[in-house]
Amino acid sequence: MTRAIVLFAHGARDPRWAEPFEAVAARVRAAAPECDVALAFLELMTPALGDAVGGLVAAGATRVDVVPLFLGTGGHLRRDLPPLVDALRIAHAGVDVHLHAAIGEHAAVVDAMAAAAVAAAGLGE
Amino acid sequence: MTRAIVLFAHGARDPRWAEPFEAVAARVRAAAPECDVALAFLELMTPALGDAVGGLVAAGATRVDVVPLFLGTGGHLRRDLPPLVDALRIAHAGVDVHLHAAIGEHAAVVDAMAAAAVAAAGLGE
Repeated sequence: MTRAIVLFAHGARDPRWAEPFEAVAARVRAAAPECDVALAFLELMTPALGDAVGGLVAAGATRVDVVPLFLGTGGHLRRDLPPLVDALRIAHAGVDVHLHAAIGEHAAVVDAMAAAAVAAAGLGE
Repeated sequence: MTRAIVLFAHGARDPRWAEPFEAVAARVRAAAPECDVALAFLELMTPALGDAVGGLVAAGATRVDVVPLFLGTGGHLRRDLPPLVDALRIAHAGVDVHLHAAIGEHAAVVDAMAAAAVAAAGLGE
């Protein structure tokens, strides 16, 4: 099994929007060097999810984990993302595609956001 | 000085979108019990920023820290939020309003997102 992970973010017109996502990708690459890591975007930025996964599969991936870099689960993750993942599974039969929960719903991410907010405001000292 | 913190998020039609933000607010309250903590939203959810800050000031806040619960800095934080904060400063002269960077730009939050992505995908073990 050749592993790949796609960090799926919203996208924005401003290129600086992507900076934290690129930083997350760099850290994932460092933590999981055996795994191919790509960013993909829902809109306004490229690559789209289908293009990113197409590239990973062409490079040999047989399992792709899609991790949404969204803080919560709204319409984009409930309504827009599942059909994109269904299309991946149809386009790449034989590739195991796993869709994960929004990164912001992980307790450790919630804890880190709360700690960062408290520190930024100079509270809790 | 009476402190308050506003956690400012995007908002969505789906009420479940707010769950991680409510969890962050609960943790901030626990970490900084001397501080009044409120959520506010840019759109689609209430309260709006002005209403949230109005309530905090009415309750006695003399300093309000606005922490954007956004992953990156796109048009919403560059273009939409600064005039809202300017309006707060005009509406509440004498209240010290501090605007902070997007929570997703804090290194500890980036680290937590990367670790959560690696763990979710079962990598790096």
